[in-house]
Amino acid sequence: MVQSLSKNQIKLITSLKQKKYRLLHGFFVVEGIKTIRELLNSNMELHTLYTTERFNNAANPDSYNDEILISETDLKRISFLTTPNKALAIFKIPSFNPIDTSELIVALDDIRDPGNLGTIIRLCDWFGVKDLVCSNETVDCFNPKVIQATMGSITRVNITYVDLPAFLKNVDVPIFGTFMDGENVYNKSLPKKGVLVLGNEANGISKDIEVLIKEKIAIPRFGNIQAAESLNVATATAILLSEFRRS
Amino acid sequence: MVQSLSKNQIKLITSLKQKKYRLLHGFFVVEGIKTIRELLNSNMELHTLYTTERFNNAANPDSYNDEILISETDLKRISFLTTPNKALAIFKIPSFNPIDTSELIVALDDIRDPGNLGTIIRLCDWFGVKDLVCSNETVDCFNPKVIQATMGSITRVNITYVDLPAFLKNVDVPIFGTFMDGENVYNKSLPKKGVLVLGNEANGISKDIEVLIKEKIAIPRFGNIQAAESLNVATATAILLSEFRRS
Repeated sequence: MVQSLSKNQIKLITSLKQKKYRLLHGFFVVEGIKTIRELLNSNMELHTLYTTERFNNAANPDSYNDEILISETDLKRISFLTTPNKALAIFKIPSFNPIDTSELIVALDDIRDPGNLGTIIRLCDWFGVKDLVCSNETVDCFNPKVIQATMGSITRVNITYVDLPAFLKNVDVPIFGTFMDGENVYNKSLPKKGVLVLGNEANGISKDIEVLIKEKIAIPRFGNIQAAESLNVATATAILLSEFRRS
Repeated sequence: MVQSLSKNQIKLITSLKQKKYRLLHGFFVVEGIKTIRELLNSNMELHTLYTTERFNNAANPDSYNDEILISETDLKRISFLTTPNKALAIFKIPSFNPIDTSELIVALDDIRDPGNLGTIIRLCDWFGVKDLVCSNETVDCFNPKVIQATMGSITRVNITYVDLPAFLKNVDVPIFGTFMDGENVYNKSLPKKGVLVLGNEANGISKDIEVLIKEKIAIPRFGNIQAAESLNVATATAILLSEFRRS
C-alpha cells in the first residue's frame, strides 16, 4: 500500500517552498496532522495528502481518494520541517473574496517575518477581523512558516495582496496607524469600521503610507525612560485589536 | 592586531549554547552590535567582546580592555547565528534582585519557546513590570534565542527561577490566571499589585498551579464559533498587561 514518490513528485512538492512556484502551480503545502485536519474541515480544496498513517478523516470522507500512504523516508524528503509530523498535504491556493469595507480591516505595510504574519492572521481570526489586506511587499501568506504559525486561522481570514497606497486612497473609512508620537489609544473612541495599518518590523509605517493616515495612535509605555524602544508588531496588533473590540 | 582564537576558546564559547555550561561557567552569549551595545550601557558585566571591527564604545570606555579583534572566519566559528553580525560578547550571568511583591508580577508556568519568553520579557519592560518569575521548567532566559528576542530588555527586568507552586503559596497578593472559562477581563477591575500567571504553550496552566489561582480571567473571542481556539501566549500577555495598565 505504501507508494514510493518519484523524483518529479518530490521536485514539485519541494519547489512549493518558493513563492514563484506556488503561484505557478497554484498550490501550497501544509504540514502536521492538526493543521491539515483544520484545513480539511474548511472550504480549502485538497490536492494530495501524503501520510505515513491512514488518516481518520470522518469530517471529509472524499479526501480519502487523495490520500497517498508513503514511507517515513519519503516524508523526510518532502518535508520542510526538521522533524516531520506524520503528514504533508498540498492544497489549492483559494481565490479570495472581495474586501468588505463596512467592517474593521487590518492592513500590513511590508511585514517581512513569517512568524509575525502568522500570528497576526491568528489574531484577526480571534478578534473577528474578516479582511486582512497586505502590501505586495509583505511576506506571502502561503509561505510554509506562515501557515504553521496561523494554526488553521488561514482558512477563516480573507487575505488580499494589494498596492497598499492605492487601496488606502480609495477607501472611504477612517485610517488608523501606530506612531511613536500618536495619540494614546486608551483615550480614543474607536469606530466599528475603519482600517488599522501596521508597519514594517524595522522601519514602521513607510512615508508614502503615513501621509494617508488620518488617525495616528500609540500604545503608551509604562516602563522607565530607558525601557524597550518599541513593541513587536504582532504584540502591538494584539493590543490594538483588543482596544478596537473591547469597547 | 587581529587575534586567532584557540581551540579551547572556541570550545568554551560554543559550549555556552547549553544551559548546563552557562551555569557551570556563569557566562552567557550576546550577538549583534545593537543588543551588545544595550548590554554595555546597562549594569551587566562584560567578560569578553569578540569583534571584527573596533567598537565605538564611548558609553563604557572600560570595556575596550575586554575587546578582542578577530577575523570573520573566527566569528563564524563561534557564532550561533547563520549570518553572524560583526560581534559576539560574553557577559557574566548577573545575580538577580529579591522579588518585589508590592507591584504587578508576571509568572510563567513552563513556557518552552525561546521566542515567546523573549517577547514576554520585552513586554514586561514596556509595561513597567519589574519582576518576571519563571517556573524551573521554563526555558532559560540566557538561552541565545531568548536574548536575541528580548532586544535588550533582559537588562531591565528582574528574572527569577523558582518552584512556582511554592512561590504562589507564599505570596499574599491576588493571583490571576487565564482560563477558557475565566471571567471576561474587560469587565474586571484589576489591581496595581498581584501576580499574573501565564501557562504552557500546549497545555495552559498546570493542575497544581490552577488550584492556587483565585482570579480566573479570559480574553473574549470575537470571531465566529469556529475561530481560533486560543491565542499565542505572548500575544495574550500583551493584551493582559495592557488591561492591567490602561485603567
